Amino acid sequence: MSGPADGEPRGLAERREAALEHLASSHQLWLATASDGHGPHLIPVSYVWDGTSLTTATFARSRTSANIRSCGLVRAAIGSTGDLLMIDAVASVRAVTEIDAAVADAYARVASDPRSVPGFTYIQLLPQRMQVWRGAHEFTGRTVMLEGDWLAQTVD
Amino acid sequence: MSGPADGEPRGLAERREAALEHLASSHQLWLATASDGHGPHLIPVSYVWDGTSLTTATFARSRTSANIRSCGLVRAAIGSTGDLLMIDAVASVRAVTEIDAAVADAYARVASDPRSVPGFTYIQLLPQRMQVWRGAHEFTGRTVMLEGDWLAQTVD
Repeated sequence: MSGPADGEPRGLAERREAALEHLASSHQLWLATASDGHGPHLIPVSYVWDGTSLTTATFARSRTSANIRSCGLVRAAIGSTGDLLMIDAVASVRAVTEIDAAVADAYARVASDPRSVPGFTYIQLLPQRMQVWRGAHEFTGRTVMLEGDWLAQTVD
Repeated sequence: MSGPADGEPRGLAERREAALEHLASSHQLWLATASDGHGPHLIPVSYVWDGTSLTTATFARSRTSANIRSCGLVRAAIGSTGDLLMIDAVASVRAVTEIDAAVADAYARVASDPRSVPGFTYIQLLPQRMQVWRGAHEFTGRTVMLEGDWLAQTVD
């Protein structure tokens, strides 16, 4: 380990701040999905964060969309393997007509616009748990959101 | 999209080369696992590549280890969301005594050594399919390995 793995573990307030920075400063995440009878799936996707949920998109007929229709629990990572935000979220497949125009416009600025790409559908992620860490020395105290609520006190 | 997403899509030989470069130049990957009845799991882990399989490690009592014991199909990503190698692999949990000393020594140079960390176990990944791409313009032709064999001809 090197770089960010060194140093004092960050406290809760600093990690909450880091979570918001990850959400706002990046437009790319790794999205892991699954459904019974299939192995896990993993894809990189573009996203936008509106302060409550993440909006992304992929092919309506993809494994990712099928998994989410079958099992609405997903796990998404933002950042690098050494400095990351991990999100457990409830996901749902959303038609173009279900997405707020401002969110759709924001998404179109960072990726292909599902409103004009045939076969694309939106996916919304509502975070339930968020964890922030930079290597094993920060495993303790990494949870910053639980059951959809930002934490005021460390739980781990 | 910007940067690596631009330019001519690479051909098969160049992508095979890129797969080997990803495998050799990085020691960190994203590992997605699943088992029936649970949502997907995703963690960053260290790994080494010995030319045939990837060796990584995590806690024996972790969700990742439990998933692999239940469902030996995993998906692993190396690189960034915009320039990546995606690997579908058969995974197995391996005891310290099952790992070749040279591989264990190589692993100990890039991460905590499972031979001296209580509760840790090795995990071996045998790639079945590998895909290499840099954004949507390279979706076609991204498969470089199928059923464990490096491809000599494009299949997608």
